[in-house]
Amino acid sequence: MSTSGFGGLHPLPHYAVIFSSQRRTANDGAAADDGYGDMAERMVRLCEGRPGFLGIESARDAAGFGITVCYWSSLDAIAAWKADAEHRIAQTEGIARWYAHYELRVVQVLKAYAMTPDAASPR
Amino acid sequence: MSTSGFGGLHPLPHYAVIFSSQRRTANDGAAADDGYGDMAERMVRLCEGRPGFLGIESARDAAGFGITVCYWSSLDAIAAWKADAEHRIAQTEGIARWYAHYELRVVQVLKAYAMTPDAASPR
Repeated sequence: MSTSGFGGLHPLPHYAVIFSSQRRTANDGAAADDGYGDMAERMVRLCEGRPGFLGIESARDAAGFGITVCYWSSLDAIAAWKADAEHRIAQTEGIARWYAHYELRVVQVLKAYAMTPDAASPR
Repeated sequence: MSTSGFGGLHPLPHYAVIFSSQRRTANDGAAADDGYGDMAERMVRLCEGRPGFLGIESARDAAGFGITVCYWSSLDAIAAWKADAEHRIAQTEGIARWYAHYELRVVQVLKAYAMTPDAASPR
């Protein structure tokens, strides 16, 4: 099967940013979808286009809770991306427009493995 | 707002397991939902009940792609959980029944922060 959409395996050491977020809903009194798709896509493109970018994966459930993990070759690459992203966000109405709460982590990947189970042999 | 569903902030250093997975669909010739909910819930409970468990967050989109991040106080705690999980999985029909592909990473959290933007002050 295709493994597109996954972060993929990369030489160690490498690093990642984990961004967990709860999108606002109509109950929060915000226009939840207004401009969000465009903003999110821009942030992804900003990540993908940078030196040191390795891969990205993202999932958001029907209740608006999402996790995005972006993999990088170095902490310097993350710092450069972060500075650029913050600069660009500062030029917008800010992420409070879209998120009710978010958590962001910078991590070092210590071990990684992938598996594509054989559908014909469930064990 | 409530921050339930988030991993939460914890003293550094700490660690995490990132589990990214694509669930099988009916197109893969598998009974995608058969028993899955029960299995997933058991794995979560297995994580939550263990020494060293700090927090867990999880999102899966409508296409069946999901990311779960489980936070731990030590690598020893992760190793103990992993051995237990593998033992329990070995007693079942295996995860090939549910997943078309998955990637698993063990990481060290280097930095973490959280924000609850003020809805009344979008900047």
